[in-house]
Amino acid sequence: MALQDVMQYLDDHRDDHLQQLYTFLKIPSISAQPSHKDDIRAAVAFLTAELQGLGLEPEVIELQGHPLIYAQSEQRQGRPTLLFYGHYDVQPVDPVDLWDSPPFSPEIREGWIYARGASDDKGQMYGHLKAIEGFIRTGTPLPVNIKCIFEGEEESGGRGIYAYTRENPEKLACDMIVISDTHLYDEETPAICTSLRGLCYLEIRVKGPAMDLHSGIFGGAVRNPADALCRIISRLKDEEGRIRIPGFYDCVVPAGDEVRQEIARLGNTDLKVKEETGVSAVFGESGYSSLERMWIRPTCDVNGIWSGYTGQGAKTVIPAVAAAKLSMRLVPHQDPDTIRSAFIAYVKDICPTGVSVEVEDMGGAKPVLIPRDSPLIQAGKTALEKGFGKKAIFMGDGGSIPIVGTFQESLQVPVLLLGFGLPIDNIHSPNERFKRSHYHQGIRTTALLLAEVADLQKT
Amino acid sequence: MALQDVMQYLDDHRDDHLQQLYTFLKIPSISAQPSHKDDIRAAVAFLTAELQGLGLEPEVIELQGHPLIYAQSEQRQGRPTLLFYGHYDVQPVDPVDLWDSPPFSPEIREGWIYARGASDDKGQMYGHLKAIEGFIRTGTPLPVNIKCIFEGEEESGGRGIYAYTRENPEKLACDMIVISDTHLYDEETPAICTSLRGLCYLEIRVKGPAMDLHSGIFGGAVRNPADALCRIISRLKDEEGRIRIPGFYDCVVPAGDEVRQEIARLGNTDLKVKEETGVSAVFGESGYSSLERMWIRPTCDVNGIWSGYTGQGAKTVIPAVAAAKLSMRLVPHQDPDTIRSAFIAYVKDICPTGVSVEVEDMGGAKPVLIPRDSPLIQAGKTALEKGFGKKAIFMGDGGSIPIVGTFQESLQVPVLLLGFGLPIDNIHSPNERFKRSHYHQGIRTTALLLAEVADLQKT
Repeated sequence: MALQDVMQYLDDHRDDHLQQLYTFLKIPSISAQPSHKDDIRAAVAFLTAELQGLGLEPEVIELQGHPLIYAQSEQRQGRPTLLFYGHYDVQPVDPVDLWDSPPFSPEIREGWIYARGASDDKGQMYGHLKAIEGFIRTGTPLPVNIKCIFEGEEESGGRGIYAYTRENPEKLACDMIVISDTHLYDEETPAICTSLRGLCYLEIRVKGPAMDLHSGIFGGAVRNPADALCRIISRLKDEEGRIRIPGFYDCVVPAGDEVRQEIARLGNTDLKVKEETGVSAVFGESGYSSLERMWIRPTCDVNGIWSGYTGQGAKTVIPAVAAAKLSMRLVPHQDPDTIRSAFIAYVKDICPTGVSVEVEDMGGAKPVLIPRDSPLIQAGKTALEKGFGKKAIFMGDGGSIPIVGTFQESLQVPVLLLGFGLPIDNIHSPNERFKRSHYHQGIRTTALLLAEVADLQKT
Repeated sequence: MALQDVMQYLDDHRDDHLQQLYTFLKIPSISAQPSHKDDIRAAVAFLTAELQGLGLEPEVIELQGHPLIYAQSEQRQGRPTLLFYGHYDVQPVDPVDLWDSPPFSPEIREGWIYARGASDDKGQMYGHLKAIEGFIRTGTPLPVNIKCIFEGEEESGGRGIYAYTRENPEKLACDMIVISDTHLYDEETPAICTSLRGLCYLEIRVKGPAMDLHSGIFGGAVRNPADALCRIISRLKDEEGRIRIPGFYDCVVPAGDEVRQEIARLGNTDLKVKEETGVSAVFGESGYSSLERMWIRPTCDVNGIWSGYTGQGAKTVIPAVAAAKLSMRLVPHQDPDTIRSAFIAYVKDICPTGVSVEVEDMGGAKPVLIPRDSPLIQAGKTALEKGFGKKAIFMGDGGSIPIVGTFQESLQVPVLLLGFGLPIDNIHSPNERFKRSHYHQGIRTTALLLAEVADLQKT
């Protein structure tokens, strides 16, 4: 049997693979919310059954948080070993009333699969297993050795897989790593991602009075914690979009001319950002284009804020506490630990009198740069161009895949970020979606990649 | 029968009056929340039954919002008519997990009655009815004509009673108005309130992207609405606590030397504010003492703010919308409508690019000044000193009682603000409470007031 039989099988089983993905998407495996612990277990059971069916010998690795799933094919000498990474957990679904269909009842609308996790990351990671299935079910020998490591804490800043990778490099030993958790450049243009921003996520709490106060009786005589929090947040960035935390830019290595020219060749993308987000005007650090702001510049965003009365009608309180979730995206060579310390020192420094502030670490990730000249990247590009029938480009990604840096450090092998999503997939938002045709093309691309990588070895 | 029989009756029925108040406090008549509509009706039924029992001919006046309750005693010529005002609705109870006992299960702890509405205003208004009961049950002729008007929208900015008062001045016609919805100066010092701040309450919503965005993909390229909202709020006041809305102070008539000296004679009250609120340091408009900041200066406070992800763990979104509830306390002669317009114009002016802002009116009240030289005020002071056995002072109150201004304008009679609460009653907050002894002393004071007012007429 040959590759063309595998491709035929994948085309013939398009609908089956969609229905099977639905089963996976129906499991509300939200890692951040303890009430979904059983659902995390259900996702683990689903994947181990799937891996077993493919003869991949799965193993559930229990850690303090949500478990890892490891699996491998028969490891034959003389052929390269590919490690597939993916995450089976998903983001929370709030605000749930903005979803047009329930987040865990997947459905197709106008060619898109709508469900939480459709694109991030269940649809993309599950596609890898479907590509492998193509070989197994057609009796076509796998051209490479396969290892899989799937985690369940990617969306909640869990650290289990970091320690496990550092402590078990021989178990995860491989020649290259493939991750599908990024996206195409646009619907017409497949892309290989060669940089990821890092992350430093924090929760900040400002405390004032011992209890909520009547804003009439005490208004004017005490510092309002919500007001103080707004003052702190408004001083994190200047009017030009530059971050004001002392030392924040110290370690930033500016992107080289080559990268900036490559980005410039993609044209003025302000309109693309406006269309994709619905904003009336783009805004960001002065001196940089929209793509540069998203791919190669660090930033700081409020992810959530809450204080006082937020129900219907009017309530005249001075809140006792105000809190916000904030995250900074980092670029090479900013270190999350250093940035976190600088943030905390700055916030304590600018905290107004009459209130106190505390900051909690909610996880982080190092920024990642991927060399473009490796044979693996070339093999990925070829597979992508065959799978999608279009020329592929190199791109950056503003998001973070926390494990990539750890893989690079501990396993010392190239990483291929082969994304099949789109920036308009609404990941982390209501109405997350994944283009149905891209799910299928992603599966085909993965099958083609296995053959390309095997060929690499031969030449 | 004579006044001393009334006072004896009130002392003898202390426990009964507490149990009856409990029944009233158990009704969760939260006016701001539509889900409590039936509870509002239950409070109306409770009061009409009570009024009927006192022979006061109650009448439920249906309006667009929650109904008014009107009642009157036999109106005999040749004696003064007192109009009692109170409100039977209460504030929401969030954050409910900070209550040490359920908000609608009243209980006594260390001499305090704990329940939502205990002090604001059920305990205080119900005390008026208990004082009247003292006359009725002892067969003592009421020394004055009584009218009552109770509303159910005081805590939610409803406007029903305003229009009703303007349109029905003959029905509410009286010689004086008594309201118990303020507080004593402290546990040792009864007080007559001679000024109330006004209110202008608004909800502000900042809108950016069409949906929540992934903060990795788009972070840095679009304006974050939560960040924009914080910037707007941080520009409402300067670092000295002065409000920066153009024209805000234009109509403020500074308090006279007499009032400022009277306040100064109460001593340095920063420590009192710190003890009552638990703040580490007081803060407010520079150039004014804590009591001045609370009684005679306007202010602006955030009452609530919300945006993005506020659940457990980390979620990396750029929120589509951010919102806040804000209120300004006003002093003579600031007009809520003028201030609202100035606020809206300023907020639109300072709104950052890339987002839009809208402001919703959530109600207001005019500031109130009460002349101190009327016989009614003197009668109130005498009753208060007899009822509490302590010398009474004049004080301001930073809160608002929206109806007072309308009563002054439409009925053209003096108003007596005879408060029995305390600034530490936690009104509008968890663990609202009312000192049990003050409930009783308030009832006694009200009975004494009826006699004092009747005596006024004679002299």
